Amino acid sequence: NNYFKIAVLPGDGIGPEIISESIKILDVIAEAFQYKFEFDYGLIGAEAIFKTGNPLPDETLKICKESDAVLFGAIGDPAFDNNPEAKVRPEQGLLKLRKELGLFANIRPLKTYASLIEKSPLKREIVEGADIQIFRELVSGIYFGEKFTDPEGAYAYDICKYSREDILPIAHMAFQEAQKRSKKLTLIDKANVLDTSRLWRKICQEIASEYPDVQLDYMFVDNAAMQLILNPKQFDVILTENMFGDIISDEASVIGGSIGLLPSASVGESNALFEPIHGSYPQAKGKGIANPIASILSVAMMLDHLHLHAAANKLRQSVEHAIENKYVTIDLNSKQYYSTSEVGSFIADHI
Amino acid sequence: NNYFKIAVLPGDGIGPEIISESIKILDVIAEAFQYKFEFDYGLIGAEAIFKTGNPLPDETLKICKESDAVLFGAIGDPAFDNNPEAKVRPEQGLLKLRKELGLFANIRPLKTYASLIEKSPLKREIVEGADIQIFRELVSGIYFGEKFTDPEGAYAYDICKYSREDILPIAHMAFQEAQKRSKKLTLIDKANVLDTSRLWRKICQEIASEYPDVQLDYMFVDNAAMQLILNPKQFDVILTENMFGDIISDEASVIGGSIGLLPSASVGESNALFEPIHGSYPQAKGKGIANPIASILSVAMMLDHLHLHAAANKLRQSVEHAIENKYVTIDLNSKQYYSTSEVGSFIADHI
Ligand SMILES: CC(C)[C@H](C(=O)O)[C@@H](O)C(=O)O
Ligand SMILES: CC(C)[C@H](C(=O)O)[C@@H](O)C(=O)O
Repeated sequence: NNYFKIAVLPGDGIGPEIISESIKILDVIAEAFQYKFEFDYGLIGAEAIFKTGNPLPDETLKICKESDAVLFGAIGDPAFDNNPEAKVRPEQGLLKLRKELGLFANIRPLKTYASLIEKSPLKREIVEGADIQIFRELVSGIYFGEKFTDPEGAYAYDICKYSREDILPIAHMAFQEAQKRSKKLTLIDKANVLDTSRLWRKICQEIASEYPDVQLDYMFVDNAAMQLILNPKQFDVILTENMFGDIISDEASVIGGSIGLLPSASVGESNALFEPIHGSYPQAKGKGIANPIASILSVAMMLDHLHLHAAANKLRQSVEHAIENKYVTIDLNSKQYYSTSEVGSFIADHI
Repeated sequence: NNYFKIAVLPGDGIGPEIISESIKILDVIAEAFQYKFEFDYGLIGAEAIFKTGNPLPDETLKICKESDAVLFGAIGDPAFDNNPEAKVRPEQGLLKLRKELGLFANIRPLKTYASLIEKSPLKREIVEGADIQIFRELVSGIYFGEKFTDPEGAYAYDICKYSREDILPIAHMAFQEAQKRSKKLTLIDKANVLDTSRLWRKICQEIASEYPDVQLDYMFVDNAAMQLILNPKQFDVILTENMFGDIISDEASVIGGSIGLLPSASVGESNALFEPIHGSYPQAKGKGIANPIASILSVAMMLDHLHLHAAANKLRQSVEHAIENKYVTIDLNSKQYYSTSEVGSFIADHI
């Protein structure tokens, strides 16, 4: 199969700028490898609210469901963040999309680049060689449990709920990945306080016997937040629930010193979505300074997902070539830097 | 008033070792300043479970309620952590104590020590001079909401609930502290997802007008987990809910490179408890290597709380003298170090 339908959701802030570099890359790859990508664009987030009143229009959802993969930019707009009364929010678009597509596993590979290690806020000896893969559960927990705000504003609640079925698929996925790597899996939870965390521990303990070669460790989330900074190299594969994963994976993104390089994949039974870890970065919008590499490396993850491994590897090589030759945006080198589209073109030209 | 009733709860792991250094200090202070401290010891945590079956015996609660202040060691035992079926847990003792005493605000001052900055996993220029005060809500949220595990183990839930009354007192406290410091308050929440977070934002926005000199900022918890490492000096006073505070404050404790130095106070209407940030550190138990300074600085916070400011300042000076003269435990200097009780005695001798 050489024909793929890609749903493209540029979203808010710098989303459109980085996504157009990813499309540039995919056009070059299509030609080089004789693939055909059909791009179906959809509205999502603040942009969708402004144009349609709905952060996830039906049309967007339809495009995504029919796609072989979704390429996602970024979401979020400060106009909504500072207004606790807003009835519709950009983020609802992404959350609903994750749920509707059943994207239960958010996968974030964290690598360090030798030539960029100096950019890390952490000392070289702490981070050099750190290589972590985070599996965050993405469609349950406190994000999707019942929520309520009393109309008088006297109280509010959010329910964190997990069932065995919510936990099993991603737990198996993390164990399997650990088998392919250094055979070490760390479950991050708060089992000394939360019933849901104890359920996670119990289920992981149960299935551990199916993966006798994997060493399963547990760590409380507060301790993990320390250990990730004190000694990130102790981690290999991390498994955690939705809310803890949101916090821990953003925290861990500082390790390599280059958040603008980090991609992610969100996968389910029949759909998958690829997006950079960084957000919509509204301050940079339209300035041509956004780093397109996180989105471009998300494209590489997408190519792997579509079993186009040769193209994925070629793309990764071209990205590394750009980084080694310091052909990068201002976030990675404030002395000599290139624009978003210059970096995208440089990478495209070297495929 | 020169007479104070202090409830002393050594607890688990290294708790008893560090607490005996704090008592040594209080004995010296009593003599130097002509105070009288009555020490009433109570069982709590794993130790209490082993001896009484109850992580917080009634007698312990009674001692604490009648005290002018509670001096607390540490809690937790790995025997319980790895057993998701355990019906009683050490941590329940501390959680119940916080609730029963109404200790709604957990206050953690984070300072860096010039002579220890090299111990930080972060680069000198990132952390030097960082000075943060965290206010964590301590008796509500997901810690104390209804929890449930289905007897078949098919699902579990934990409810995060906040009412206006839960939020107001600690919010006012944080604003007031910001007024005394650099007039900058950051509320950390997840208002783009959680109803409870939006309630926090709304209430903080409402009362902000009573503190016109304080600049109130909001930050999502995932971003905050990054920003604390990328640029900790951007923070002054931080306010946050219980679960986020647990994670963020442990994460922030790595900044200065010396977790063994960090004290905390948990205060309510009529009671207050003082404990080090570090936990029970079971691997170090009985080895005489635990750093007693976090507990000793918790004593300094306790003295301030009892309005014994002269003694508190003298004690802090003596601690700084020990640190500057490298009279410290192995965690702070692996080349030349002293035992827990040697460090305690050195500090006591210099008061
Ligand atoms: C935008 C927001 C709802 C989202 C989340 O919290 O999941 C983001 O932080 C992420 O991690 O993808
Ligand atoms: C021991 C545990 C229940 C406790 C908490 O989570 O509050 C601890 O981590 C703390 O921060 O004091």
